[in-house]
Amino acid sequence: MSKIILSINAGSSSVKISIYSASEGQPPKELAETQIDGLTSPPPKLKYTRDSKTICKAQKIDRDISTQNDAFKYMLDQLINDADFTAISKKEDIAIACHRVVHGGDYDTPKIINQDTYHHLEQLTDLAPLHNASALEIVKFCIKDLPSTRNIAVFDSQFHATLPEHIRTYPINADIAKKNKLRKYGFHGISYSFVTRSVAEFLGKEVKDTSLIVLHLGSGASACAVRNGESFDTSMGLTPLAGLPGATRSGSVDPREEDSFNVWQRSLVFHYASDVGKLSPGSTKELHISSAEEILNKESGWKSLTGTTDFGTIASSDSPEMKLAFDIMVDRICNYVGSYYVSLHGKVDALVFAGGIGEKSNLLRKRVAEEAACLGFGVDEELNGKKIEDVVQDVGSKDAKHRTLVCQTDEQFEMARLCSMDKELFK
Amino acid sequence: MSKIILSINAGSSSVKISIYSASEGQPPKELAETQIDGLTSPPPKLKYTRDSKTICKAQKIDRDISTQNDAFKYMLDQLINDADFTAISKKEDIAIACHRVVHGGDYDTPKIINQDTYHHLEQLTDLAPLHNASALEIVKFCIKDLPSTRNIAVFDSQFHATLPEHIRTYPINADIAKKNKLRKYGFHGISYSFVTRSVAEFLGKEVKDTSLIVLHLGSGASACAVRNGESFDTSMGLTPLAGLPGATRSGSVDPREEDSFNVWQRSLVFHYASDVGKLSPGSTKELHISSAEEILNKESGWKSLTGTTDFGTIASSDSPEMKLAFDIMVDRICNYVGSYYVSLHGKVDALVFAGGIGEKSNLLRKRVAEEAACLGFGVDEELNGKKIEDVVQDVGSKDAKHRTLVCQTDEQFEMARLCSMDKELFK
Repeated sequence: MSKIILSINAGSSSVKISIYSASEGQPPKELAETQIDGLTSPPPKLKYTRDSKTICKAQKIDRDISTQNDAFKYMLDQLINDADFTAISKKEDIAIACHRVVHGGDYDTPKIINQDTYHHLEQLTDLAPLHNASALEIVKFCIKDLPSTRNIAVFDSQFHATLPEHIRTYPINADIAKKNKLRKYGFHGISYSFVTRSVAEFLGKEVKDTSLIVLHLGSGASACAVRNGESFDTSMGLTPLAGLPGATRSGSVDPREEDSFNVWQRSLVFHYASDVGKLSPGSTKELHISSAEEILNKESGWKSLTGTTDFGTIASSDSPEMKLAFDIMVDRICNYVGSYYVSLHGKVDALVFAGGIGEKSNLLRKRVAEEAACLGFGVDEELNGKKIEDVVQDVGSKDAKHRTLVCQTDEQFEMARLCSMDKELFK
Repeated sequence: MSKIILSINAGSSSVKISIYSASEGQPPKELAETQIDGLTSPPPKLKYTRDSKTICKAQKIDRDISTQNDAFKYMLDQLINDADFTAISKKEDIAIACHRVVHGGDYDTPKIINQDTYHHLEQLTDLAPLHNASALEIVKFCIKDLPSTRNIAVFDSQFHATLPEHIRTYPINADIAKKNKLRKYGFHGISYSFVTRSVAEFLGKEVKDTSLIVLHLGSGASACAVRNGESFDTSMGLTPLAGLPGATRSGSVDPREEDSFNVWQRSLVFHYASDVGKLSPGSTKELHISSAEEILNKESGWKSLTGTTDFGTIASSDSPEMKLAFDIMVDRICNYVGSYYVSLHGKVDALVFAGGIGEKSNLLRKRVAEEAACLGFGVDEELNGKKIEDVVQDVGSKDAKHRTLVCQTDEQFEMARLCSMDKELFK
């Protein structure tokens, strides 16, 4: 029997819901997709696609929508009340709601979440309060308001559960690290899971025989060394802040930088200091989000250098600031390409570009491949210039030693698929 | 006319003085070397070599020596009072004292320091208080107590003044970065300068035509991509904390790690908080050294994983903790080898191992070369097993595409040489 699965993806300023129909052990089929953008720059805007037809594209919403959960509730109402969307006519039609949760701690598979197990997710929030909070609000709402729906948390970190010990371990005091769960976790794993399977299929190989350097480049960006189908190394760390720069994220910096920002943000430091006295040993919330951490996550990256989050503008501009931001991005990406080439001992089936920027910026792909030509990568000018329309599309030069591919990753689909392919989750 | 030059190198728990005789435009000749170790684990011990003869090797010192400046004064007295050391019989015999200063900010050459210019060094201390302080105490003492000696600061960052803008720039708010001088500086530059010149000579090439991946591996460890004789990239950043792990240093970690340590060190946070109220806008000293920064610099690294700072023990042990620490080090080093191979577009004259561990650990060299075999590196088992006796010694396999060398770096010599070869500094 087929069931309706919702894949819910709450980002920092948007919420996306994809609706699928699926049968056990079968890949899900998409029925509709709805999205609210611009939560941090009102008015929020609605996009809605049903049966591959665009119903609305950027419809301004007049109602007060300030949180991710508000946006979710709005879209849920709209889906239920859309007479033309027969798959969902009442709440009870939704069998499974799967939620993208950024930080999954030690979880290596999706988890069914109910009233009794919700505290497991809350514990994870301590590890990444900036990243898990909005998804959790929606999970909470669903547990309460959709009592007949099964909630499943799918974690961005779970694909990286295979990181070897010497790669996930930070060389810091082992007791403190263990007690505070300080290690490399890695993120964008739902995407890497989709990419790895799709590329293996494209290459006609088993996943377990496929080794890739994957670049997931969007407003958040990371790299992953996939060795024999499994994550061997990745650029993000304890949180998504480490590694590559993003639209508003610095990526790895010298730890002292954080201090400098704390000094700079004197007023916030005073606020912080005045709260310290109130803390009991168990209550460390005030300390968990530092002003510096927020600055490095939300007020840095290429936007802080150029004023825009739009990488396409940056890649095609000649202004010195834009060129600098582009060169920084190329350099940091190439650092990982080189590192992971060695990690994989040169046994690389393909260099794969994914994520919004990876799919769209042929200029970035060209520069990265040129810089890494000494490793045997290269793009074909014509193929690389084409619009990316397939799930996996070849952009590599015929003469290059290793292939270069683009993959249109689909995290929503991957989440639904993880649920429909698993007996325990789907039953 | 030849002059006496002292090269003074104040480390975290030791001070080393090398004494040279030099003429203008000529490389210096070493006359003696004296060193006090164990400042942080008393009793301190003296090592003294004169005319290549060991006078004492690990002589316990009964006098109270608690600071680097105490150690310097003790050795200075001893040099002046040693009747058999005729080069220095009174303070006035010392023409030049050159001081290794870790953080040189924007300085790209050594600087003559006197009463009037000392404040330039003090300003730098804000950038790296943990690293510059002990050298500055000795500079201050010399300015006052050796009035006829010229004091020259030689900076560990100066070799990296050539870092291109897109590599030295962090993707953070550009105004804050400029105001606070937040950028990649890089360190171990005195060593990289020595290595680059020595290896170029060994290869029979001009420095400006020499491109290398250099690994300076000691209790502090870093990597450098030397492109056409100049630093193109290096692993340390705003401070020496970024990049590779060291004996007690974490290397790069997720910025959130620092927060976790702050939470852990609750008592220190309280201390810090209680001091914040006293701060005027110009006085930010209390904030500059965070407890977390000290933990990541002094209580992390392979010692925190294994209990020992001795990498030789770690490399040859089979215990799980030691093996983990060794594998972490190999992995992080290989990450940089891969990155810099791409930075140099594969045009690499040699992979060069330097520093105490680089010179001594043939096991580490073997593993790194094996891991990076896909780039064309490889060691010769027999050559790599030999004792390193030459300044530059070949350990590479004859069949490898690129050479692998070991260089016995000599920072003391390099400092003295920078002074004797420069008319303005030497006159």
